[in-house]
Amino acid sequence: MRSSFSSASAGGVSATSPGTSSSKSSSAADAAVAASLDAAVHAKAIELSSTLLETCATAGVGNPTVAMAAVHVATTLLYQSMRWDPAAPRARNADRLILSDASHAPLLYAAYADLGVPAFIDGAWRPLAASDLVRFGRGDGPLPASPLPSRLAAIDTATGAAGAGLSLAIGAALAARFDGEERRHFVLIGDGELREGVLFEALAHLAEERLAGVTPVFLVSPLGSGDRAAAVDGTEALGRRLAALGLHVVEIDGHAPARVRAAAEETARRAAANQPTAIIARVVRGWGAKSLQGGAWSGRIPTGDKLRTALEELRASRIGLTRSYGVANSRPTPRAASEASRHDASVKGPSAQIAPLADFARAMREADMTALYQTGRLAPRRAHALALRVLGRAMPELSLLESEARRTLAGELFTADRALAPRAHEFRGAEQHMVLAARGLAASGRMPFVAACARNLLRTHEELLAAAQEGAALRLVATDAGLSAVASGPASTALSDLASLRPLTAIRDASGTPALHILQPSDAYSAYALTLLAASHDGLSLLRLPAGELEFLYTPETEFALGRFEVLVEGRDLLIVTAGAMVHEVNRALDGLDEAGIDATIVDLYSIPFDEEALLDLANRNGGRILVVEDNQGAPIAGAVSEACSASGDGFTLESMCVRTPTVVARTFADALTESQLRAADIVARASRMVGIGA
Amino acid sequence: MRSSFSSASAGGVSATSPGTSSSKSSSAADAAVAASLDAAVHAKAIELSSTLLETCATAGVGNPTVAMAAVHVATTLLYQSMRWDPAAPRARNADRLILSDASHAPLLYAAYADLGVPAFIDGAWRPLAASDLVRFGRGDGPLPASPLPSRLAAIDTATGAAGAGLSLAIGAALAARFDGEERRHFVLIGDGELREGVLFEALAHLAEERLAGVTPVFLVSPLGSGDRAAAVDGTEALGRRLAALGLHVVEIDGHAPARVRAAAEETARRAAANQPTAIIARVVRGWGAKSLQGGAWSGRIPTGDKLRTALEELRASRIGLTRSYGVANSRPTPRAASEASRHDASVKGPSAQIAPLADFARAMREADMTALYQTGRLAPRRAHALALRVLGRAMPELSLLESEARRTLAGELFTADRALAPRAHEFRGAEQHMVLAARGLAASGRMPFVAACARNLLRTHEELLAAAQEGAALRLVATDAGLSAVASGPASTALSDLASLRPLTAIRDASGTPALHILQPSDAYSAYALTLLAASHDGLSLLRLPAGELEFLYTPETEFALGRFEVLVEGRDLLIVTAGAMVHEVNRALDGLDEAGIDATIVDLYSIPFDEEALLDLANRNGGRILVVEDNQGAPIAGAVSEACSASGDGFTLESMCVRTPTVVARTFADALTESQLRAADIVARASRMVGIGA
Repeated sequence: MRSSFSSASAGGVSATSPGTSSSKSSSAADAAVAASLDAAVHAKAIELSSTLLETCATAGVGNPTVAMAAVHVATTLLYQSMRWDPAAPRARNADRLILSDASHAPLLYAAYADLGVPAFIDGAWRPLAASDLVRFGRGDGPLPASPLPSRLAAIDTATGAAGAGLSLAIGAALAARFDGEERRHFVLIGDGELREGVLFEALAHLAEERLAGVTPVFLVSPLGSGDRAAAVDGTEALGRRLAALGLHVVEIDGHAPARVRAAAEETARRAAANQPTAIIARVVRGWGAKSLQGGAWSGRIPTGDKLRTALEELRASRIGLTRSYGVANSRPTPRAASEASRHDASVKGPSAQIAPLADFARAMREADMTALYQTGRLAPRRAHALALRVLGRAMPELSLLESEARRTLAGELFTADRALAPRAHEFRGAEQHMVLAARGLAASGRMPFVAACARNLLRTHEELLAAAQEGAALRLVATDAGLSAVASGPASTALSDLASLRPLTAIRDASGTPALHILQPSDAYSAYALTLLAASHDGLSLLRLPAGELEFLYTPETEFALGRFEVLVEGRDLLIVTAGAMVHEVNRALDGLDEAGIDATIVDLYSIPFDEEALLDLANRNGGRILVVEDNQGAPIAGAVSEACSASGDGFTLESMCVRTPTVVARTFADALTESQLRAADIVARASRMVGIGA
Repeated sequence: MRSSFSSASAGGVSATSPGTSSSKSSSAADAAVAASLDAAVHAKAIELSSTLLETCATAGVGNPTVAMAAVHVATTLLYQSMRWDPAAPRARNADRLILSDASHAPLLYAAYADLGVPAFIDGAWRPLAASDLVRFGRGDGPLPASPLPSRLAAIDTATGAAGAGLSLAIGAALAARFDGEERRHFVLIGDGELREGVLFEALAHLAEERLAGVTPVFLVSPLGSGDRAAAVDGTEALGRRLAALGLHVVEIDGHAPARVRAAAEETARRAAANQPTAIIARVVRGWGAKSLQGGAWSGRIPTGDKLRTALEELRASRIGLTRSYGVANSRPTPRAASEASRHDASVKGPSAQIAPLADFARAMREADMTALYQTGRLAPRRAHALALRVLGRAMPELSLLESEARRTLAGELFTADRALAPRAHEFRGAEQHMVLAARGLAASGRMPFVAACARNLLRTHEELLAAAQEGAALRLVATDAGLSAVASGPASTALSDLASLRPLTAIRDASGTPALHILQPSDAYSAYALTLLAASHDGLSLLRLPAGELEFLYTPETEFALGRFEVLVEGRDLLIVTAGAMVHEVNRALDGLDEAGIDATIVDLYSIPFDEEALLDLANRNGGRILVVEDNQGAPIAGAVSEACSASGDGFTLESMCVRTPTVVARTFADALTESQLRAADIVARASRMVGIGA
């Protein structure tokens, strides 16, 4: 029987002739093969449904009737249509099945246990077995409720937030296109996700880019996201909407294996013609177990008698179906991808080692900007853009994703360079989709730099949290950060972004590495160096660029490192901690501090998290007095320092100067500092009070 | 001429007969009237374009060519089609023009100055005048770059984030439907917003609810969000997508006044048949000034010679157009709404005074839950649901907005009550749209309670920031908050939500009131009382509900107030500050603290921000030692206390116990506490170290 699977399967983009299994003109022999294939899928589907019901009942976790609705689609794709090797599902050329709705996880786990996909169990990789399914839903096991790539070889990116799967797949497909891989990405999308805005962002991007390697598969039941689907979410309206975007749409009975197979084949044929296709599968929640159908069982788990009844109904369905289709006499097996490779080594992050690159001065020279360089002041974003171009030329795996391509200088430099332009992606304001797609790119071995203005990154909080939890190697770039951005207008000012994202730096992976490093340049030199540093760190980082021009603070000799800080002035009375554009204002306070008789230490805390011990040592050498000066609302830098003080158990005096005004009215950085009482004179006054001088 | 405007205008939902101005069979007299109307609009449009160009040039702020693209649409709607009175634009029955893209602000400001719409200038309301336009773009003036309702009577809700306008209008239209008002809401949507996911969420909701009182007007230029619009964002594809959602679509030349007028009339006719309509207007950026057309001018402001040339081109356009249409001999004037009312008093927040309501025990009795009440433990969310039902019955202005209706107990109680069911709205997973729509409802005088699980609220960070900045009176409810939610599965656990939102409590309005109050119940009594408290506060609050059942801590006599905290135990050695479900674990540490000889003070800090002086007084009475115990990542409560300590200038010893584990593995609250080292024993150990007892 095995060869017949090959002939019936779509075989990736090397599509077979049209209509192999669904054409009405197929011969009687073909019909017999198709019927036998159908019987095999039905038998396997019922086996997987029974397994997932028992798995959920044991774990007390899951949404089994929703998972059962996807059973024929997943079985047909995994066992017949997709070209992949269960021993190496992350091989570069292996087709992917990507979850969007985590409700489908127990179904995929049942299939992967059946197929022996490698899982990381008790410290080692070995094929997943049916006996492992009892671990479903445990956060520390191989089968958490939301699948993780670190635990199971068939998972590329962590599944979590509703509506995210298609974006992750688009990122993976963009990477495949760069690498010349012809793999296909099927995305299972549940009908509880149809109203997620980010899903629309992804669909529009898919249509614009004509990424035919991605096939969204919508599993639409009459129940929808509530008790009853709205007409606007029904298969008909959905099909019209997808078609209006320019996608080819195939609507099928999601429980008819032949239809699923034919749709996958049609997708492959259309892909060869660069036409992306969406599949809409009409499905039934709790398929095969009548007692579980209906809205009351959505989100609930049958146990005891209810479970026994459901399993009995599934058995009866199997007898009825195998009789009508003829008995399946073979165990369906997925077709191997042509080149097998190891699951745990197939896709690696880009090398963290960067060849020696041009230093800042040379980069400026090469960009004919020597005159500008000699003025002694430069916009940090300009130095960042230069660094990114230098990196882009040296590292073919680097891609630049931008919310609005024409907004950043880096984007302009990239698009102006013929070699780099194909690696610059514009996301037309769809920031949430962009961050998810970047995860897909990173999981496929590319190095995405992801840029948006700080204000717009606020709307990606959930996506950034997921990236941090997954340990995704994204290099985020926030432009127009802090008070220096007031000149660009109030709508682009974000003063709470750092406070909002700082908690993510507290998340650590198993090896204790912070999930996020926040890097804040204070001049062009540090912007250049910290961009290179972000590239060299194979993890999540956020480079937070101030707006406008700033004077040079550093020299080519200054070394920057993750978790380090720079002592600009060393004194003994008071430790002043600051970062970003505020470093300049603190420097301006030096004369006043001198006059007031205060011998202050000034630290540029350009990296968060930081070496807490070293900073507190410095504080202890300054009478235990710390003053944090920052242009943020919510005092996130002071919070980080405060936590370090608390954790040390020693006593420190910590004071914080930050933005406390409700709305910033000023139109220049200087005026905004005055308004927020963050001028040099304010710093001197506060320092004097702390050291016990003056009022 | 004035009466002819009336006959040509659509007159709100009381539509005139079809085709008044655009029908080909109209008489010669009608044609003359239409031509004259067109000439009037052209003349006014060119006047407004000139004004906005000068306004932007003076301010150095704005995106004038994008604003010019909307000039005929806005002029026709404001001066001819809409039924409103410039002296009272927020009258309940007045039609609304709602901005989505803030780029259009200078255009509307020019029109409102021409029409004398009331603005809040130098401390008083008076009609806006042309001479006020020099204040455009100043954060403290009546005309900020992003319009604010507190500064200009024609603005219902603050404009800001891209893609938000339609959601705000939907909220306003839902409120109008409740109130039986037949006003219409036109939303100007720019072509830079077409990829915003939240816009799709709003369109789907509009289609599902058939809110025919809302008309999205898409202004689509060939330039799109970048240099060139993608085909998928073109008028044709956009029209197909909107039609696929079930909207009626009218595509017009956005610079032909008669077409705009006819489209508005058609919208009114369709609205009478409950059919929502979308208008797609093909527009030209920099219309009327050839030298400004083309992508290079997007986002740029002409000054000097460039400005003079553009103004000259506009003048030439006027001469050409008025000649072809006949000279307009009247100043177009909007048609007044039938009932005029004062702009600054027309729409008020619901009364903050709540009639005496059933206390918790009586509410339980009335819900036949006396037996449950007597067990001495209850899920806080159950008490919250009861409180919300009591409130809902007493306050007809209360609406419940839920991300997924069937997920919360409050939603179940609401939908089960015939009187309350019409006020329960399900948003099918579209949280961002939900928060924006709630602002629209609140601006129209309703009292929205907005519920989602804490994890899903993370994705609304930007929308919540905008609500806080506006001072919108939303009552947010976050369910499944903190470690107690681990039992509901990892996907629903949010441990960084409080850290992410706490900075918003630092934002103050002009009167010093915090922009956000975070309320954290620790038992059923406090959940009941804090729900009532949230209702009575006419501002933004977030009620953060723990999961699961908890023992009663309080009694019916306990009084809760904003900014207050409860001293559960008063000692003198150490102040322990905690909140939410963690209060129970701290209580459990009491015996151990006693044994260790520590006389601790325990505070339930149920409200943030809080009375800092009172808390620090208490700390001073406890040797200046503070231990914060919380089940959050990022230590937000410790951060709040730390800021208070810093601000006081006194020396305190502050230590923090929070969640530092990267991923929570446990499946029960108790196990999660153990895993995070937050058990009673851990608290005793840390307290002992702080007080200097033991190791």
